[in-house]
Amino acid sequence: MLVVITYDVNTETAAGRKRLRQIARQCVNYGQRVQNSVFECLIDAAQCRMLQQKLCSIMDDELDSLRFYYLGSKYENKIEHFGTKRGYEPEGVLMV
Amino acid sequence: MLVVITYDVNTETAAGRKRLRQIARQCVNYGQRVQNSVFECLIDAAQCRMLQQKLCSIMDDELDSLRFYYLGSKYENKIEHFGTKRGYEPEGVLMV
Repeated sequence: MLVVITYDVNTETAAGRKRLRQIARQCVNYGQRVQNSVFECLIDAAQCRMLQQKLCSIMDDELDSLRFYYLGSKYENKIEHFGTKRGYEPEGVLMV
Repeated sequence: MLVVITYDVNTETAAGRKRLRQIARQCVNYGQRVQNSVFECLIDAAQCRMLQQKLCSIMDDELDSLRFYYLGSKYENKIEHFGTKRGYEPEGVLMV
């Protein structure tokens, strides 16, 4: 299934930027970074639970938030993109 | 239907922050801001086309990107949230 993960973090702090890098590193193991803090992962339910646990251990749950959107297996017509298609390098310089 | 809109913009510039405010203002007419640049709108297909046109006219399509995720009408079990549930004021100070 396709899971869209959105991560809200204050990237004005070095700690926030570090958490975003760590979150991104985990997510791109399972999919791609489509925006600075939006990831699309193709995973099954078990992988999803594992990923949730990892991400929740990285985030600061008093400052950050994570949302998971479950788009199922027939997701091709459920996504539209407008604007730049700049790719994101998982370890690259972050554009915020 | 529920439409999740994610907006990727460089908020290090005043122009980028202004576009984010303008995007947010349009989106919260139809729904709520759930993260700094993630909006959930309850709209029909016609409203969605109108909103897309407005947002595309605001964004800088060489710098920014917008993604629309269509979650349909049975979306209650398709969303999970972790971490802070800080609300966003549409006209408030932006935490980036």
